[in-house]
Amino acid sequence: MARFFMAGTNLMGGTAIIRGRDAEHVRVLRIRPGEDVTICDTQGTDYKCRLVRADKEEAELEVIEVVPCTAEPSVKVTVLCGLPKGDRTDYIIQKSVEAGAARILFFQSDRCVARPETPEKKIDRWQRIAEEAAKQSGRGIIPEVGWAGNFADALNEAVHTDLALFMYETGEREKLNEVLDANHDIATAAIVTGPEGGFAEFEAKLAGLAGLHVCSMGERILRCETAPVVALTAVMYATGNLS
Amino acid sequence: MARFFMAGTNLMGGTAIIRGRDAEHVRVLRIRPGEDVTICDTQGTDYKCRLVRADKEEAELEVIEVVPCTAEPSVKVTVLCGLPKGDRTDYIIQKSVEAGAARILFFQSDRCVARPETPEKKIDRWQRIAEEAAKQSGRGIIPEVGWAGNFADALNEAVHTDLALFMYETGEREKLNEVLDANHDIATAAIVTGPEGGFAEFEAKLAGLAGLHVCSMGERILRCETAPVVALTAVMYATGNLS
Repeated sequence: MARFFMAGTNLMGGTAIIRGRDAEHVRVLRIRPGEDVTICDTQGTDYKCRLVRADKEEAELEVIEVVPCTAEPSVKVTVLCGLPKGDRTDYIIQKSVEAGAARILFFQSDRCVARPETPEKKIDRWQRIAEEAAKQSGRGIIPEVGWAGNFADALNEAVHTDLALFMYETGEREKLNEVLDANHDIATAAIVTGPEGGFAEFEAKLAGLAGLHVCSMGERILRCETAPVVALTAVMYATGNLS
Repeated sequence: MARFFMAGTNLMGGTAIIRGRDAEHVRVLRIRPGEDVTICDTQGTDYKCRLVRADKEEAELEVIEVVPCTAEPSVKVTVLCGLPKGDRTDYIIQKSVEAGAARILFFQSDRCVARPETPEKKIDRWQRIAEEAAKQSGRGIIPEVGWAGNFADALNEAVHTDLALFMYETGEREKLNEVLDANHDIATAAIVTGPEGGFAEFEAKLAGLAGLHVCSMGERILRCETAPVVALTAVMYATGNLS
């Protein structure tokens, strides 16, 4: 069934009105009056609707059923990534949205090769990638993509969740599965991963001091664009959100 | 430490000889006599070596220590994917190798859009992608990439493992975490995922009849190139190979 993302306020009173690009989309998909579509309010609620009428500018739909979107995980995970080079950001955004992230934030860390003066300029494009991936994978929300700032800002974001995980490749670390086994009952979590060169030792030390769990994900070295997706999948699996 | 993949037979008698492209690589990396490198026999064993001498054609190394490669997972997972379009194969290969796959095989299924007359021609290129990813991620083997044949051939490959998982998006399915919880003690496993359009209903039915576990991975719809990596990560996590 076709899915459309719309702000909740358009859905009052048993009728939904779709305008603009989404109305055009209804036309392109050749949806006929009497056919059903799902409207998602981007807040985790799905509105099962039946098309009443549609023209180029506007489509009117009757709301048949209001249900929570079952695709939304029970745990809201913020993915925090040291800014990588080139289009690796796009890949991280797309795959993290598919795998169930609630937010994806990039930040500047010691070994970042990419040093955009104004990462804010990229946020619009990043957000569109997230919206596209959310539609494709049937998410109930459009995950927010943004810029966290520097390393300390990223740690600050992470510690304000129920379980903050810092992925690090060497030294003394906790085992990811042991940390997750001991923390099943969480509503929010954060995953912090590094840029191409990984984290500096002092960054890992700071993360530990700030109360994050410095974790290993096995002996295989994951690329900076693979690590967030693997860690996110582990969190989803451990919290029962992958079945 | 630099890693080189070499056949085990070159490592007899406490001395290793590197020739050809790898010898050139020693030169490019400016490794000096007395410096240490790791030679991997591609069978899961690492040889810690010290460089004795090197020129353009040949490098001689003294074997100091022979150790099992700790990066190899305890379970050998064969990833079987319905052939996708374009460079999605490359992505599946690279990420599956990072995530710990032992073998990656593509096959033809009902909804494959890509229908290469001779997929065999692509295998050399696929294998090079696997080799590159194995080096990068510090694997102890170079996972085999190949062509399984048709759908029945793929099922046949899968049922010859200890735990054969068939990922399917609709209908009655087992929960992936319940299947994995009930099958911790496995030496081999198979993950079967579909092409862009997913599997046909009769294919899922056949898989079930053949004894595969037809599994769900939650309500989010994963792209055909994302599903194998997510499923593989779940298997690695559940079998203790992600920490």
